[in-house]
Amino acid sequence: MAEGEFDVIVIGAGPAGMSSAVFIARANLKTLVIGDPEKSELIKAESVGNYLFANGRGGRELLDEGIAQVEKYGAMAIVNEVVHIAKDEPSGIFTVKTADAKEYSARAVVLAIGVSYVQSGIKGEKELSGKGVHYCVACDGYFYKGKKVLVVGSGNYAAEEAIELLAYTSDITIISNGREFAISPELMAGLQKGSVKMRKDRGTEFIKPSASAKLTLAKKDGTKEDFDGAFVALGTASTVGFANKLGLELDKDGFIVIGRNGMTSVDGVYAAGSCTGGALQMAKSVGEGCVAAISIIKKLRGIDNYSDLT
Amino acid sequence: MAEGEFDVIVIGAGPAGMSSAVFIARANLKTLVIGDPEKSELIKAESVGNYLFANGRGGRELLDEGIAQVEKYGAMAIVNEVVHIAKDEPSGIFTVKTADAKEYSARAVVLAIGVSYVQSGIKGEKELSGKGVHYCVACDGYFYKGKKVLVVGSGNYAAEEAIELLAYTSDITIISNGREFAISPELMAGLQKGSVKMRKDRGTEFIKPSASAKLTLAKKDGTKEDFDGAFVALGTASTVGFANKLGLELDKDGFIVIGRNGMTSVDGVYAAGSCTGGALQMAKSVGEGCVAAISIIKKLRGIDNYSDLT
Repeated sequence: MAEGEFDVIVIGAGPAGMSSAVFIARANLKTLVIGDPEKSELIKAESVGNYLFANGRGGRELLDEGIAQVEKYGAMAIVNEVVHIAKDEPSGIFTVKTADAKEYSARAVVLAIGVSYVQSGIKGEKELSGKGVHYCVACDGYFYKGKKVLVVGSGNYAAEEAIELLAYTSDITIISNGREFAISPELMAGLQKGSVKMRKDRGTEFIKPSASAKLTLAKKDGTKEDFDGAFVALGTASTVGFANKLGLELDKDGFIVIGRNGMTSVDGVYAAGSCTGGALQMAKSVGEGCVAAISIIKKLRGIDNYSDLT
Repeated sequence: MAEGEFDVIVIGAGPAGMSSAVFIARANLKTLVIGDPEKSELIKAESVGNYLFANGRGGRELLDEGIAQVEKYGAMAIVNEVVHIAKDEPSGIFTVKTADAKEYSARAVVLAIGVSYVQSGIKGEKELSGKGVHYCVACDGYFYKGKKVLVVGSGNYAAEEAIELLAYTSDITIISNGREFAISPELMAGLQKGSVKMRKDRGTEFIKPSASAKLTLAKKDGTKEDFDGAFVALGTASTVGFANKLGLELDKDGFIVIGRNGMTSVDGVYAAGSCTGGALQMAKSVGEGCVAAISIIKKLRGIDNYSDLT
């Protein structure tokens, strides 16, 4: 079912992801970059002054050049959105699924996913987290076998979470929380096949007076609806989404914890750029992309030292 | 006596130093860069392929552009060699001395000094380290009051160490270990004023049979000479030299230990680039320069968050 087998998949096509892909591809490892450069914060920069040797150039021009540089050294770059990731044990192989329902496998992944956390604004979400409100179907879907479940979100990530829920229950409702739905044809077909209900309702509050009580969603139109549980999957898969699916350690601010070598708490998973916290700067992102790449090259090649001299 | 007072002095004019200087100067802090771009490893690169957005450009062209970028944002850059650094307590002010005997002060320093450790090749050096053979006059010169002392080295760093020794003793000999001496007129005047002896002898072995015995230097010409102690100061001031003078923690491989925010173990001292170990890559150096800069800006401005958006 896998569209392609790679040594490394880089998730994210901003400066951190591009930098790591350049190094990894130059080391002759089969490299796939999945992401949309247009979603990088860099696209907003009219003139970049602080990144050494790119003085005065525009963000869009740099991103175009970056993708060309990535491809020049043999990495494949596809503009898409990652909606699911899983690690198989004991093989240690990662499977990454995109919004067009294609799957790719790799021996290591670099998360260069930026900061994209979107809050639902629904009252009670935080208080009921883990007590009826969840963030990861792969982690908690099991508890809702045959139950009535809500998914909150309007994009491909929410669609993928709903489709994963079909393994446990057939009574699934997605609410877009007032937004327009934006879902790929492939995932839409999966939702329709599973008879997933889709509505543009906007939630205002989650209510659950006791552990055994239903989870009630109060809505902006004044109505209320009961569910057994809810999964929040707003925006694109964020650090929280990836952390839940892979078991990554996050710091208190929700950033991915890495060591000085770019490794996360999960073997084979590396992270770089804004998703690791600290300075939100292109130079820091490019540097971390490099560091993660060198660590991966050493790991996959089984060597202690690696230098890319030019 | 200080030639100039700065907020920050960046020591080293390779990619790490330049990157940090660009960020610091853009934050309107008075910034001085001391170093020689020609001594950066980057100068050897005919075509840079792995640094994002500098695809195919030459090392010399990039270094020239980097210095222009540093100066564009108001940092001062001088091509010189740092021969001494000290931190005053309790003021926390750093004094940095260059080979032309000028002094500059700053509230924080970035060490971006690369890897330049030179070994003497003299047998017994390592075994007698701390037991007659030393690496820091500011640390250990005191033990040689009125004694006969040897300095091993041919450059400005050795000259500065010898001049510092004049505070303790007048019987000082520098041997160049077979190299030509290369010392600035200002430091040469200091050596002559102090009647420091200079010879091109080459040492082959340090011998010291017991704690109370003299330190004997065996030479290539077959002769031997006794000293009370020796200070090794080869090449330029390296991580070991700076670590000794400032009390910095080094790792087991001799690299400067930093945290993820670029801070060393000494307050006000930051490090970036090859001198911190890890990947010897321009991208990593530029990233670490950025990270150290942001930390310094936050510290000197007393703020918790700082972003330089372009």
